[in-house]
Amino acid sequence: MRRIRIIGIGAGNPEHITIQAVRALNSVDVVFVPDKGAEKSALRELREEICRRYIEHGNWRTVPLKVPKRAAAGDDYRGSVDDWHAALAESYERLFRDELGEDQTGALLVWGDPSLYDSTLRIIEAVRARGLVFDYDVIPGITSVQALAAAHRLVLNRIGEPVTITTGRKLAEGGFHDENGSTVVMLDGEQAFAKIDPAGLDIWWGAYLGAPQEVLASGPLAEISDEIVRRREAARAQNGWIMDTYLLRRHES
Amino acid sequence: MRRIRIIGIGAGNPEHITIQAVRALNSVDVVFVPDKGAEKSALRELREEICRRYIEHGNWRTVPLKVPKRAAAGDDYRGSVDDWHAALAESYERLFRDELGEDQTGALLVWGDPSLYDSTLRIIEAVRARGLVFDYDVIPGITSVQALAAAHRLVLNRIGEPVTITTGRKLAEGGFHDENGSTVVMLDGEQAFAKIDPAGLDIWWGAYLGAPQEVLASGPLAEISDEIVRRREAARAQNGWIMDTYLLRRHES
Repeated sequence: MRRIRIIGIGAGNPEHITIQAVRALNSVDVVFVPDKGAEKSALRELREEICRRYIEHGNWRTVPLKVPKRAAAGDDYRGSVDDWHAALAESYERLFRDELGEDQTGALLVWGDPSLYDSTLRIIEAVRARGLVFDYDVIPGITSVQALAAAHRLVLNRIGEPVTITTGRKLAEGGFHDENGSTVVMLDGEQAFAKIDPAGLDIWWGAYLGAPQEVLASGPLAEISDEIVRRREAARAQNGWIMDTYLLRRHES
Repeated sequence: MRRIRIIGIGAGNPEHITIQAVRALNSVDVVFVPDKGAEKSALRELREEICRRYIEHGNWRTVPLKVPKRAAAGDDYRGSVDDWHAALAESYERLFRDELGEDQTGALLVWGDPSLYDSTLRIIEAVRARGLVFDYDVIPGITSVQALAAAHRLVLNRIGEPVTITTGRKLAEGGFHDENGSTVVMLDGEQAFAKIDPAGLDIWWGAYLGAPQEVLASGPLAEISDEIVRRREAARAQNGWIMDTYLLRRHES
């Protein structure tokens, strides 16, 4: 039977990869590489470096996968995501049939961990729902949330208190209402931290976490929010892309 | 200067360890090994196996650290934890002074990730607050939450929705009120999932995640709650200890 391995490769440092992931990579015949356009070419190169560095046999090849652009979300975020997953599932199914022999193994490499704000598992389920029969497994990877915490030498939770991981969209919509816990924000393309009431909040922010160009900032949100917006914009201009993550919590009195 | 490396070693599978952690282990002169009594001897053996398997030079040794038992929490959970951290900080400070040369490196190995429901970083900060000068860094590791998600091939979040990580204590106290998001429960010694209203909830449960004795169960909470309680008790009796984690969310209509 065809087999697909969905491998978390960490958050931007090639050494985030686990021994389990290295072993999985070495069981692979084909690595499917999504091509999201020029914007993220730095990430594509890092992914290729990971394959070259860790795959020890010579019998593997990469197959590019053109990723359709997601429609602007407008009022129907779920709907636009569902349509995009369906289009991707069709592409993946065709590639799995055409490029993978019936006893071969393919890999999809996922930044961070396949279990957190990543579409790959949903798309794989959609490919199976279309009728293609294959086995698949998941190898966890270090997320940018963990790289953020490590870089700041930070414990995500207060003692005995919860941690919420959410999106920039949710924070911008709902504001910050986490009195005792900690809130980690991912996928924030709109700098939601600068749109909420900063009174009494601390922020630990990081971009390109784990990578050589890593940038960190932390302190009272009211004091450093503008600075983060400026540094973020400068880094994005310099690198051509940015991915950042941050933790917010109420200052402990 | 003395250096302490706080290294996440994953959730029970020796192959969860990252290349970064392997490299950090190989920079170490002394591994400090907390001894929490016979109950967790299986975990202690696994930690020793990780050191033997991955440290390639011969110039390292382990130093045991006797961990005082934490007072029963009673009404003051935070207070009992703070007292326990203070006692531990005193022990660690003495060990760092006595066992580590001024230019040597010590390691503390942490199950899962040092950033999530782990005391090590707070204790290290307390040691520094007592006046001992040393450098330290943090290496992230795969958590049981990620091992749970990988084993169930599960995405933790619904599309665009938050994920809350909390404790059994919090869930038992407050009940389940997460209408759209997903709630992951750790450190649940009281089977809080069996104490909440199960109507409309699904559970993905796992124990000994990543280890050979891994046990999984998933389904509607109302239907499988009793079964999980039974299987959990049987596994605990058989192994002498148990660590489990689960995700709860409202069944999508």
